[in-house]
Amino acid sequence: MALDIGVDIGGTNIKLGLVDAQGRVVARGRLKTEARKGPRQALERVAAGVARLRKKHVVRSVGVGIAGLVDHEHGIVRLPPNLPGWHGTGVKEILEELTGLDVHVTNDVNAVCLGEWLFGAGRGCDDLFCLTLGTGVGGAAIVNGRLALGANGAAGELGHTVIFGNGLPCRCGGRGCLERYVGAKYIVRRARARVKAEVKRMTSHRDQMPLFKGGIVEKPSVLAMLPARRLDPETIGRAARDGDRLALELVQETGDFLGLGLVNVVALFDPARIIIGGGIAGLGEPLLKAARRTVLRRGQLFDGRKLEIVPAALGNDAGIAGASRLGRLPAPA
Amino acid sequence: MALDIGVDIGGTNIKLGLVDAQGRVVARGRLKTEARKGPRQALERVAAGVARLRKKHVVRSVGVGIAGLVDHEHGIVRLPPNLPGWHGTGVKEILEELTGLDVHVTNDVNAVCLGEWLFGAGRGCDDLFCLTLGTGVGGAAIVNGRLALGANGAAGELGHTVIFGNGLPCRCGGRGCLERYVGAKYIVRRARARVKAEVKRMTSHRDQMPLFKGGIVEKPSVLAMLPARRLDPETIGRAARDGDRLALELVQETGDFLGLGLVNVVALFDPARIIIGGGIAGLGEPLLKAARRTVLRRGQLFDGRKLEIVPAALGNDAGIAGASRLGRLPAPA
Repeated sequence: MALDIGVDIGGTNIKLGLVDAQGRVVARGRLKTEARKGPRQALERVAAGVARLRKKHVVRSVGVGIAGLVDHEHGIVRLPPNLPGWHGTGVKEILEELTGLDVHVTNDVNAVCLGEWLFGAGRGCDDLFCLTLGTGVGGAAIVNGRLALGANGAAGELGHTVIFGNGLPCRCGGRGCLERYVGAKYIVRRARARVKAEVKRMTSHRDQMPLFKGGIVEKPSVLAMLPARRLDPETIGRAARDGDRLALELVQETGDFLGLGLVNVVALFDPARIIIGGGIAGLGEPLLKAARRTVLRRGQLFDGRKLEIVPAALGNDAGIAGASRLGRLPAPA
Repeated sequence: MALDIGVDIGGTNIKLGLVDAQGRVVARGRLKTEARKGPRQALERVAAGVARLRKKHVVRSVGVGIAGLVDHEHGIVRLPPNLPGWHGTGVKEILEELTGLDVHVTNDVNAVCLGEWLFGAGRGCDDLFCLTLGTGVGGAAIVNGRLALGANGAAGELGHTVIFGNGLPCRCGGRGCLERYVGAKYIVRRARARVKAEVKRMTSHRDQMPLFKGGIVEKPSVLAMLPARRLDPETIGRAARDGDRLALELVQETGDFLGLGLVNVVALFDPARIIIGGGIAGLGEPLLKAARRTVLRRGQLFDGRKLEIVPAALGNDAGIAGASRLGRLPAPA
């Protein structure tokens, strides 16, 4: 049987995979995007990668996931945040011309959502929401067993939903957007401020020794002993898992904010499952636990409501696996 | 050709209509719900009403819209807010038994949304969101040309989306829900507080005369001259249309809040059209204008984005017209 190829075009790397009907990546390719050299050269190398994979198997179609607004009918990408100079690129047209294969294009988070839905944490679920937490906060929804694209290919934009109407200004021009509270760099920014306060508190103590609190020696946070540039989400997550108080507070606070965003997802989509992936999801169970608690407290839970909040299952392959199925989905209604 | 009957079951009245293929109500019935006497007696009278309409035309199916959580497969209503004692009623089963017709049941706002989509302000639009503003704030979405029901029949619950994460406590147990800011009684509550402040300001003025501001006699708001019980959304809307400053401020503020809720709808569903109906929509153009401005400012608008915010077109018939089509929709995927 013919297989399909999934392509994940990022700002730095492009990953390709030959994907079987069970969503397994049976062969792969990887290349540099070199985004600044423009889309044509990159897509020519993608076509060469596709040609290499075709030597191993009969290929039926190519599906591409790419960050940005995608015109799904024409396979054109608009406003790609990490691909300067790619605005308006007819990815579908160029790749079809270069490969002679049927090519479909979607937003990168849509591809991840499709992957998790068909092969990962969302299997068997007709209504789900998938989010990716990283530098940006992305989302995509399956509604009635179909990907929700929206009228402009922009559905699922969880990052710029409002959780604090009068909140902090966001790079999008709005205020109080979810991304402004749970995006990687804002977590780090909050961490730095907290660490600074912690260090000040510790060193202001006369004898410069660990603080006593209720008769117990209070251990300083490990985060306070790292150089500032080492304060990244992974380090914070690791420290939280090791029981570091400050790290745990940061992760829980992030989970509380995330939970507010999820309340809105629950209210509007009523998904049976919310799937959380992306780098920040590596903050792990304490993050999900705090998010779940906020949703439980605010999410209009009624007896027997079907709702799970679970981590993504496929990791980095989700986008490739999902994109590969684009040519096999039923046509939009 | 056989026609269909739409039924709109409210807490006080039940409206029935024989609806043609163009969504026109060609014959009607109306009866008291007498909700406290239980569902059986009410549904028996609905069946009698259906029988009367059948004398005029061949009827194919009956569609029912009812406030509450609806199990769409079995046509059971749960937690109906205005129908005490109806929790768990098998509306479909009872009405099918009583009428011998095919019966379908959905949430009342879903019915309005279907009506506006098929026959009203949403015609020709595959991705839209419809909201009803009144005592409560309801919503429903069409995604990919289908009604989004959600995994629990609870999709579109705009009223309890969070717009102020640390906002005012809401009756749902959450905080900062949209309904807490734009629900009818909260608008009135805000109006009363403002009027009180206005009256205080005017009477504290030594000569008890209209205030001078920049050399111009400032006219007191007409709202300040009404008895408190007359302060309802219609009066406020009328005063705003007449140019009353205080009323206009109240309407604009309400529109700003509504706009924050719509930012989240736009971000998550990316509808081509947002349709606003319900009593509060009677606040009219100043309300929509303020809401549009907030969305424009915050809603990640990009060049050529398809998005309109428009008033509902069908008025009170939307629910009947929409419900009547339930038996003619394609089966869920």
